[in-house]
Amino acid sequence: MKTVVAGPLQGIKVLDFTRVYSGPYCTMLLADLGAEIVKIEMPKNGDDTRHFLPFKNNESGYYMYLNRNKQGITLDLKNDRGREIALDLAKWADVVVENYSPGTMKRLGLDYETIRKINPNVIYGSISGFGQTGPYRDRVAYDAVAQAMGGLMSVTGYPDHPPVKVGPSIADANAGIHMAYALMAALYCREKTGQGQYVDVSMMDTVFSILENFVVQYTMTGIVPQRAGNENLASAPFDAYPTIDDYVIIATANDNLFHKLVRVMEREDLITDERFVTNLKRKQNYSQLKPLISGWTEKHTTEEVTELLVHARVPVAPILTIDQLVDDPQIKARDMLVEIDHPIAGKVTTPGIPVKFSETPGTIRTAAPMLGQHTDVVLTKILGLTPAEIAELRNAAVL
Amino acid sequence: MKTVVAGPLQGIKVLDFTRVYSGPYCTMLLADLGAEIVKIEMPKNGDDTRHFLPFKNNESGYYMYLNRNKQGITLDLKNDRGREIALDLAKWADVVVENYSPGTMKRLGLDYETIRKINPNVIYGSISGFGQTGPYRDRVAYDAVAQAMGGLMSVTGYPDHPPVKVGPSIADANAGIHMAYALMAALYCREKTGQGQYVDVSMMDTVFSILENFVVQYTMTGIVPQRAGNENLASAPFDAYPTIDDYVIIATANDNLFHKLVRVMEREDLITDERFVTNLKRKQNYSQLKPLISGWTEKHTTEEVTELLVHARVPVAPILTIDQLVDDPQIKARDMLVEIDHPIAGKVTTPGIPVKFSETPGTIRTAAPMLGQHTDVVLTKILGLTPAEIAELRNAAVL
Repeated sequence: MKTVVAGPLQGIKVLDFTRVYSGPYCTMLLADLGAEIVKIEMPKNGDDTRHFLPFKNNESGYYMYLNRNKQGITLDLKNDRGREIALDLAKWADVVVENYSPGTMKRLGLDYETIRKINPNVIYGSISGFGQTGPYRDRVAYDAVAQAMGGLMSVTGYPDHPPVKVGPSIADANAGIHMAYALMAALYCREKTGQGQYVDVSMMDTVFSILENFVVQYTMTGIVPQRAGNENLASAPFDAYPTIDDYVIIATANDNLFHKLVRVMEREDLITDERFVTNLKRKQNYSQLKPLISGWTEKHTTEEVTELLVHARVPVAPILTIDQLVDDPQIKARDMLVEIDHPIAGKVTTPGIPVKFSETPGTIRTAAPMLGQHTDVVLTKILGLTPAEIAELRNAAVL
Repeated sequence: MKTVVAGPLQGIKVLDFTRVYSGPYCTMLLADLGAEIVKIEMPKNGDDTRHFLPFKNNESGYYMYLNRNKQGITLDLKNDRGREIALDLAKWADVVVENYSPGTMKRLGLDYETIRKINPNVIYGSISGFGQTGPYRDRVAYDAVAQAMGGLMSVTGYPDHPPVKVGPSIADANAGIHMAYALMAALYCREKTGQGQYVDVSMMDTVFSILENFVVQYTMTGIVPQRAGNENLASAPFDAYPTIDDYVIIATANDNLFHKLVRVMEREDLITDERFVTNLKRKQNYSQLKPLISGWTEKHTTEEVTELLVHARVPVAPILTIDQLVDDPQIKARDMLVEIDHPIAGKVTTPGIPVKFSETPGTIRTAAPMLGQHTDVVLTKILGLTPAEIAELRNAAVL
């Protein structure tokens, strides 16, 4: 056995052409686990998210969160010498990741077929809205487009209200995490076989992949799944209920939990009520059951209902807002908020590392790079360029 | 270089104690890529999802989708001999995964500390609602509870309507996919160092991790993110708009896209309209801009608006329903629907494999197991039990 490493991915070298959210979330997941990332940004403007809210001393919190633990260099990929440097870095890399529109990397001369010629065992991942193949390949996509076309929007929201997208851009995050898993699988495979490969992940495919049983519901029964607000399709009572101050989720999926709930409500008579004796009956007669539950929750605060039901071991939840979460004891106990010290912005609190390893935990080692912060060190240490060569490239606006 | 393998994870052995959605989605992601899965189910009832909608010939589509490519055995883990068999299988496994409530595996004598004694390099993953540590550790969680307590619900929905959960159980899926990535990273690390480890992933942590910039928005500015329906917080017009027959997503995040849009609308005058000359102004004056956009979309069908804007290269999307998706040319072109032939249910169409590998693509090899289908073959081939020993265990209701 070798010595313990600092993170499970220590030693892996990633060349990162990604921008905005899906790709940077993917490479953050690799960086947090110890991989060495060299992120390439266009000179002058850099990643679009450098200009996204919120700001502190003109530094974007959006960018600082998603690009921690990465090295950043500037490089004009449309310039021939810029492309040559990118190819030299691709020779160094174990993994290359990009999330440009399909065809862009080919136009830049930085596609998989080109790079595998100089690095035959490279693993190369592309994230896009619709994938590298198929009739929608060249359509322009933002997160909301993928949420709508992946099927998620049609089944999210209240039945008497228009469809609604998930607030944060989860189609981006979801594609990013699926790509992280796929790259890891390809890397494991390369350890075993020596073979690299190309990995193609789309936002539409990966949204479609997290629709639970909604797809088989339709293919097996012909019934088209609809929006159901917070109601559960199979169980009752399992919904959001109003309280004095907000709402509360109560989720009972079987008789045992229902009995616990009505005992807390001091309505044990409901246990033997013919309308509610089985989960199926409670679901069928939910319009009669719902006002009985909300009549009780409305007399209490969310905190009171939560305490009573946690104590009774009935699944219950307040609908935590972001400010409540930042102060939440579980989030704190799980190190899900980490303070990053940025040279310009100072101390910034960002979400922590969502996967916990017993032997080689992920770490927050560095703040996100300022634009071009690591250009000199990367070009010197990895490519062996001299200060004079770097100065010349900078004068030519390649960096 | 060795020979090409059938999937990137071929040769990896997974002992799978998971049930319902989060764990089975995780192990499906491993199974689809070629890992060998032995799934343990309780005798008689099996995984709860065997009783979840939809059904065909009494076989659950929920179960059949998520458990394809896996071998299934029955084993009573509360029985001493059942536990011994589980430990023998844990000795065989590279990876053990479970999603019981924290503490359950310890009570069963199947926790990481016990298993690592007999398999020192094992990788052991636990998925739970709140994690293995912290004050909420022992709370009961369903998906809706995690969506509410991870912060996602508070920022999803319309501002003038109650918060709403995402329709499908994405807190489950999201925890599962984060675990798949973490297990892959641990496996890669083990190849390098020989060391196994424990991985702890919670639904609350992983929901909190996909809130995009909402957390830094609050920690950096003190402003609590709110629900905004389908509006984009930074750009306009970027929203859902009504059409003759439904809604359509139009997403313009910069001047260039806005100019393309208003040209299609034959409202080029809006380009120089002082109220709308920059993205910031369009956002500030969105209440005046919105009726102009929806006034145009309302005169067209969703298909017409989509065609016009796809042609103009403006991000646009119909809100596809599940039946539309099942017939969608992109979903078909991407093999995102696969037909599985089940011995009882017959042909069933389920979602395909969401990550595409050029050299070692994932495959659908077998239908989900019937309850206990592989008990004999697994106990014979992996553990070397004789038919007489198996018959005796079956008589004793251990299997």
